[in-house]
Amino acid sequence: MTAAAPIRVVAFGGGHGLSASLRALRHCSRDLNLEITAIVTVGDDGGSSGRLRVERDALLPPGDLRQALAALADDHPTARRTASLMQHRFAAMPTQRTSPPGERRADRSVDTLAGHAVGNLLLLGLIEMLGDPVRALDHAAEMVGAQGRVLPMALHAVGIEADMVGAAGEATTVRGQHAVAVADGRVSALRLVPQDPPACPDAIAAVTAADWLIFGPGSWYTSVLPHLLVPELAAAIVASPARRLVTLNLSADKETSGLSTADHLAALHWYLPELRVDTVLADAKWAGEPEPVRAAALALGAELVLAPVAVADGSPRHDPESLSVALVPVLGSAR
Amino acid sequence: MTAAAPIRVVAFGGGHGLSASLRALRHCSRDLNLEITAIVTVGDDGGSSGRLRVERDALLPPGDLRQALAALADDHPTARRTASLMQHRFAAMPTQRTSPPGERRADRSVDTLAGHAVGNLLLLGLIEMLGDPVRALDHAAEMVGAQGRVLPMALHAVGIEADMVGAAGEATTVRGQHAVAVADGRVSALRLVPQDPPACPDAIAAVTAADWLIFGPGSWYTSVLPHLLVPELAAAIVASPARRLVTLNLSADKETSGLSTADHLAALHWYLPELRVDTVLADAKWAGEPEPVRAAALALGAELVLAPVAVADGSPRHDPESLSVALVPVLGSAR
Repeated sequence: MTAAAPIRVVAFGGGHGLSASLRALRHCSRDLNLEITAIVTVGDDGGSSGRLRVERDALLPPGDLRQALAALADDHPTARRTASLMQHRFAAMPTQRTSPPGERRADRSVDTLAGHAVGNLLLLGLIEMLGDPVRALDHAAEMVGAQGRVLPMALHAVGIEADMVGAAGEATTVRGQHAVAVADGRVSALRLVPQDPPACPDAIAAVTAADWLIFGPGSWYTSVLPHLLVPELAAAIVASPARRLVTLNLSADKETSGLSTADHLAALHWYLPELRVDTVLADAKWAGEPEPVRAAALALGAELVLAPVAVADGSPRHDPESLSVALVPVLGSAR
Repeated sequence: MTAAAPIRVVAFGGGHGLSASLRALRHCSRDLNLEITAIVTVGDDGGSSGRLRVERDALLPPGDLRQALAALADDHPTARRTASLMQHRFAAMPTQRTSPPGERRADRSVDTLAGHAVGNLLLLGLIEMLGDPVRALDHAAEMVGAQGRVLPMALHAVGIEADMVGAAGEATTVRGQHAVAVADGRVSALRLVPQDPPACPDAIAAVTAADWLIFGPGSWYTSVLPHLLVPELAAAIVASPARRLVTLNLSADKETSGLSTADHLAALHWYLPELRVDTVLADAKWAGEPEPVRAAALALGAELVLAPVAVADGSPRHDPESLSVALVPVLGSAR
């Protein structure tokens, strides 16, 4: 691989995990010529995005797309301030008002801006104005000087449903990304609703042209695995000549509390049996016993790379700088 | 005046009239080195801005500020698209929903985004995030590549009140910019509430350093005269060494239906007796008999310039291109 040709990297995920991955890739750009594309889950039904789905029939839940744009924003002060504006959430209005007596009083019951991220409303407006989510995302990317492209995993919002088994063995079905993310129990089956949402053609093209596909970190059932359930996208992932990297989570969150680190890898195989992986990146301190992880990686065809990628304060979060130090030799290696 | 030194122009107004003036000044920039500052009324209490004042205690009504930013936006496609986004108003949601049965239904009663301009929400968020309306406006100006600065005439929203005399001679007091703009009758007295709002220091500085101050076109009582009622701003206008230009309206709107073109000039004198004017610009076709207008201009110390500045279709709107053709020799003339 020559220094001149860009390395085309596609990162899959949603929310904070994808943001950490994208920030790390931006750091890698100091050493490597990367062309970054983020492909983002569109199942979010909580918070500001969830309200926009209910109140405005939002074509796409904007929250995770906005987070990815902010993570790719340029370091120039104007771009950073625009990114901060996108991330800014309208404060709740105080219930007591300080205006002089006699002036028209605020009707707090209609303060429905509170809690919305400005960037969510901006993306909603752009999609409504342009009638095309990809053009809308490309424009929002220009607004923050994004060092890469942000695309949705499907062209409209999807629902996420999980069959779960509780502590006493009882089976339930949990509907909605937020509900799945916080439900107690073990996920026995994960589905999208509808099961065959239209994939985003630009996302398919990016996967097909990629040199690397990166899965994780992130909430496994609600941010990482959903991509594998979009049939057209899964087919493109399997068919792509790209090498594949899995960045494992540092600790189990609520939805995966029953899963070991090795189980995370097995879940990828379960939902997309044809998926082969080249490299699994894990943090030595957080991965636990390396042998089961190494064996699970090997079952996918992957080599396990252990590196210190967590933040220094001991919390289970990836440090973008450390993650980039681990990623540079992997992404920059000759095939 | 050398070609190298910028001509510092301050345009006062609000709404569509100010937009026409600013678009014309942008056109002038092809021939003259202009440094443009818009100083915008902050009395708007209708539509999206009015709702944000009631529902969010908005520090400033953003609508007229947003319009001025859009008028100054750069011609680059990205800047133009961002300006279009700012001007885009969220559509009302259809009352009938097309989603499949069984899915969670939208609660239309909470669709309070409908009718809001995206740029109003963006300015509201910027002011909330930065805590400083001038920094917020400067950032929004950068977002659209504005060829100039947009500043508020006061640091917080004001009310506009008018004592009016009806057709049968009955006296009433009308409260609120929107109500004044659409009320029947003749305005006998105009007030701001509060009467002494804090002026914007950057606006005062721009007036003090200006080569030209431009008043109008625009709704006379609600967009042009209010600046003269902010005591600090009025004092700066009187004290400024700048030359002053009044661009007259093409026809009377509802609020000034009792006023002749000459009366518009007399109203400037009535509300700020110390105001001297150098040039009054009017359209020959629309101004009516020139002599009363010339006499009213002379009473302010001004020369009357007649030029074709209206759009070609016969409607009473300024054409920015024609207005700029008339403005270039005036603004570019040596003192």
